Amino acid sequence: MPKPEITKEMPKAELVERIKKGDIRAIARAISLTENNDPFSHDLHAALLPLTGKALVVGITGSPGSGKSTLVDQLAVALKKTGKKPAIVAIDPTSPFSGGAILGDRIRMMHTAEHAEIFIRSIASRGATGGLSRFTFDTVRVLDAAGFDVILVETVGVGQVEVDIVRAVDTCVVVLVPGMGDTVQTFKAGIIEIADVFVINKADRDGADLVLKDLRLLMSVGEVSDAKFKNPIVKTIATTGEGTQELIAAIDLHQKWLRSSDEFQVRKNNIARGTILALLSDLVHEKLFKECPDLLNQEIQKCADRKETPYQAALTLLKAVGV
Amino acid sequence: MPKPEITKEMPKAELVERIKKGDIRAIARAISLTENNDPFSHDLHAALLPLTGKALVVGITGSPGSGKSTLVDQLAVALKKTGKKPAIVAIDPTSPFSGGAILGDRIRMMHTAEHAEIFIRSIASRGATGGLSRFTFDTVRVLDAAGFDVILVETVGVGQVEVDIVRAVDTCVVVLVPGMGDTVQTFKAGIIEIADVFVINKADRDGADLVLKDLRLLMSVGEVSDAKFKNPIVKTIATTGEGTQELIAAIDLHQKWLRSSDEFQVRKNNIARGTILALLSDLVHEKLFKECPDLLNQEIQKCADRKETPYQAALTLLKAVGV
Repeated sequence: MPKPEITKEMPKAELVERIKKGDIRAIARAISLTENNDPFSHDLHAALLPLTGKALVVGITGSPGSGKSTLVDQLAVALKKTGKKPAIVAIDPTSPFSGGAILGDRIRMMHTAEHAEIFIRSIASRGATGGLSRFTFDTVRVLDAAGFDVILVETVGVGQVEVDIVRAVDTCVVVLVPGMGDTVQTFKAGIIEIADVFVINKADRDGADLVLKDLRLLMSVGEVSDAKFKNPIVKTIATTGEGTQELIAAIDLHQKWLRSSDEFQVRKNNIARGTILALLSDLVHEKLFKECPDLLNQEIQKCADRKETPYQAALTLLKAVGV
Repeated sequence: MPKPEITKEMPKAELVERIKKGDIRAIARAISLTENNDPFSHDLHAALLPLTGKALVVGITGSPGSGKSTLVDQLAVALKKTGKKPAIVAIDPTSPFSGGAILGDRIRMMHTAEHAEIFIRSIASRGATGGLSRFTFDTVRVLDAAGFDVILVETVGVGQVEVDIVRAVDTCVVVLVPGMGDTVQTFKAGIIEIADVFVINKADRDGADLVLKDLRLLMSVGEVSDAKFKNPIVKTIATTGEGTQELIAAIDLHQKWLRSSDEFQVRKNNIARGTILALLSDLVHEKLFKECPDLLNQEIQKCADRKETPYQAALTLLKAVGV
């Protein structure tokens, strides 16, 4: 007997039950309700909450061209072979201009039969600064509840939102490559210090040892050297899969350390704080758009015409929404 | 007779008067009050507002290592030679971990005597997502009021906050370089479509023509090709100053087009909207930190312990601040 259609009218309990069983269509439905900010999705997430907390969430971040998508694929396949149930959440940079992923959704080669059973969800990075992070972790929550036990969150690694996202994972992997510009420059861009594990991908290329040397030098100075965990550095060649096992071992090593340290609770609280504050902003904005669209437009006009400062406009709108 | 000290007690009118005259210490004082979110700064900005609107704000964005700092310096010197009064606002990537600019404040070579009179303000990119953009444009407002007529805002070009900032300028210059990875990849990262003017820096390097070819190809497809303004592409060698005049001409060309089109008002309104919404978030968060710190901590704990969703926590806090 075919399963009944998943409809919006389906009782929450049934949808939750299906997600719990790992039903892909139910998972997709839950993510889609979340994406559309459907009021029902809030109840759904509250109902999914007790099912979560089992997945390991690994962030993988690196510049465009660093081969991180290939690496993530390899990692997922390797994890699957060890009996794990991995899922991939890939945050695709999108154009702020055209509103869509510029070159279409990710084009990912599915080399092997195993890939067919790895859940991949692509998220366009366009949208509210807070919204991207919120939706990413709502998606992670659904996948966690559905029994995926390793969730790989892939982002392009520069910028505050990406930093916020990779900070909110259990283990953050930063992918560097030889010849993509100076390691020191990447370091300056701020992403490296949030790394738990470093990967030097395309390690067969000239300059891989230089990246390794630079990394070791940078890790020997300042705050990084004071850290309690010595970040592993793993060399990989994602196109062949070389180094993937070592990467899995390095992630395990970090998790063992994290769960035995105070850092674990600090990290969980920081994540909760960031998420709650971003959501609070979203809710205030939503109320404003819904209840005072005309006043908002008037204030925008006054600011654009330099008749008042943005601060004065924000104060007026704050009163209007009741704060 | 020496001028009296600039103190916090100095009447607003006098500080405004000094800023209007371009007094560097008064400008620095105003920026510092703004940075510290001093309540006085809000009144000050309201008083500065009628003095603003004369400056051309040019955003210059590019990857670390693209040579954009050197280019910005050359641009400032060249503008000064034509009788302009340029200022530089440089947003420095900072570590989200150590809280400071990793390698210290920018190290910028001051080659010529002219540099001495170019105002450079460095802004650490650390801090609230909204806060960076807000502080950048508050700084721009002070400089505009002070009579600087070209304000060069320099950012590392990937990430939502950077995108928000370079969107809020009059002309956005995107700097590419040969050999720093695939142009298509940079394009995917979303920054290119917000460019008004392209620069290919280090144009004497191998691959400069390839970047040019790629750019022309990318501009011939999709939404970009529908744009009303054909983005100029300028080749520069920032270390020698080659191409700087051409860049100034390209910026002029864009401004002439912008001011003759509907786009001018649309852009001003979009900027005002973004700024107001970010400020509104900041104000709600500030109220929460001040009035309900204990409730916030309780809600963070509940979320971290998976006893409620971030959405449930945000709703509770929203009520607590009065929305």
